[in-house]
Amino acid sequence: MKIVIIGAGNVASHLAKALFNANFEIVQILSRNIENSKALADIYKCKYSCDLNDLIKADLYLISVPDSEIKKIVSHQNLKNKFVVHTSGSIEMNILKLNSQKFGVFYPLQSFNKNKYVDFFSVPICLEASDDDSFEELNNIAKTISKNVYKINSEQRSKMHIAAVFVNNFVNHIFTLANKIVENEKVDIEILKPLISKTFENILNQNPSEIQTGPARRNDILIIEKHLSELKNYPQNFSEVYKAITESIISTYKN
Amino acid sequence: MKIVIIGAGNVASHLAKALFNANFEIVQILSRNIENSKALADIYKCKYSCDLNDLIKADLYLISVPDSEIKKIVSHQNLKNKFVVHTSGSIEMNILKLNSQKFGVFYPLQSFNKNKYVDFFSVPICLEASDDDSFEELNNIAKTISKNVYKINSEQRSKMHIAAVFVNNFVNHIFTLANKIVENEKVDIEILKPLISKTFENILNQNPSEIQTGPARRNDILIIEKHLSELKNYPQNFSEVYKAITESIISTYKN
Repeated sequence: MKIVIIGAGNVASHLAKALFNANFEIVQILSRNIENSKALADIYKCKYSCDLNDLIKADLYLISVPDSEIKKIVSHQNLKNKFVVHTSGSIEMNILKLNSQKFGVFYPLQSFNKNKYVDFFSVPICLEASDDDSFEELNNIAKTISKNVYKINSEQRSKMHIAAVFVNNFVNHIFTLANKIVENEKVDIEILKPLISKTFENILNQNPSEIQTGPARRNDILIIEKHLSELKNYPQNFSEVYKAITESIISTYKN
Repeated sequence: MKIVIIGAGNVASHLAKALFNANFEIVQILSRNIENSKALADIYKCKYSCDLNDLIKADLYLISVPDSEIKKIVSHQNLKNKFVVHTSGSIEMNILKLNSQKFGVFYPLQSFNKNKYVDFFSVPICLEASDDDSFEELNNIAKTISKNVYKINSEQRSKMHIAAVFVNNFVNHIFTLANKIVENEKVDIEILKPLISKTFENILNQNPSEIQTGPARRNDILIIEKHLSELKNYPQNFSEVYKAITESIISTYKN
């Protein structure tokens, strides 16, 4: 099966590698940044270009570009009636309808960085397709590169993306704030790591809603007020985040 | 060295076990709940009581009770001029001054659950003492039960407690919200676990402020508004938390 990959960013790079390792034939990499497309094409010994007019024939066109670029790409004449899929968490599948009858979504629910190893076989892939046959084709591809393939429609996928923002982006930011508090007190940030490990272990093995602890869970107003007063010496976002999550915990367990 | 433990909750239970395993002599457990004190005393074959008037002689009195109970306990006549320490993250050391000249704080920075195993040797212990000699005594005890002992004053300790609330309580709640979103879409919550594992791996090995990604980091207003609009079907705390953390990320990276 011949695949063209449109995009050469974090997701495109990891998908290309996983597909190549599963013996799919990557025939072309296309990216508006010619150096990125060349760099990726060099690895897989295939053609590359920065111009959609250069698109060559393939069985599948995998579009892995910023959300705002997808529409422009799928309307290109060279993709007319081609089997196209995008990899976005947020964009509806039907954006691909414009030019094709056979299309789908192939959304890997993971945080990728071009230069960091990912065990792709454990990455969940959210699949959606225009029709049953296309779904089966995509499912066969997905199952060769991941053990976690899910049938997820556009509405569900957008919610999975929101959940991913919570567990990845938001959690990472909470750790950023915590580290700044520790650094500000001139204490080694290593002091937090055993607690971070334990938190993570608990969350993976238990239902987090059943193991919630802390001042907000106990509705310990005295400690909450003490903390908010101490956070006054920090930029305002520290206390805004503290307040929003504290109120959310209190409202979650109030009955 | 003879130790009396006042309290029989999560922290007291784990400290008792760690001290016992390091060959300290636990001579009495005292808790307002007699069944809890008996249960713990049975393990360490020591005396127990629910009444401060029953306190027996020891070299060290370790007070591990809810913050609001500490003051009442330390003013008891049986603790007059005794070596007392508390284990609270938030309460100033000087609360122990009332009745003693020799006192300190022994705050283990970890989330404990009576019934769950903790590798105590990796738990950070925040130490503070009334004087150098007392500090040395506490330091010698702490170093036998943990490899991570920190000298931390009352002001720093309260900040470490806030940081612990962020990395443990708040992160746990973020996962609770994310799980609810996934469950609400009738998708298996297992779908989030590879991303959760990756997030923690990243945080433990890199500086979280340097690896922040996501719609807020890119200031991608379209996606942020789409997410907030989709969260309108959820209780209000979901969007309040989303907004507060998104704004915090934007303000952190705005320059």
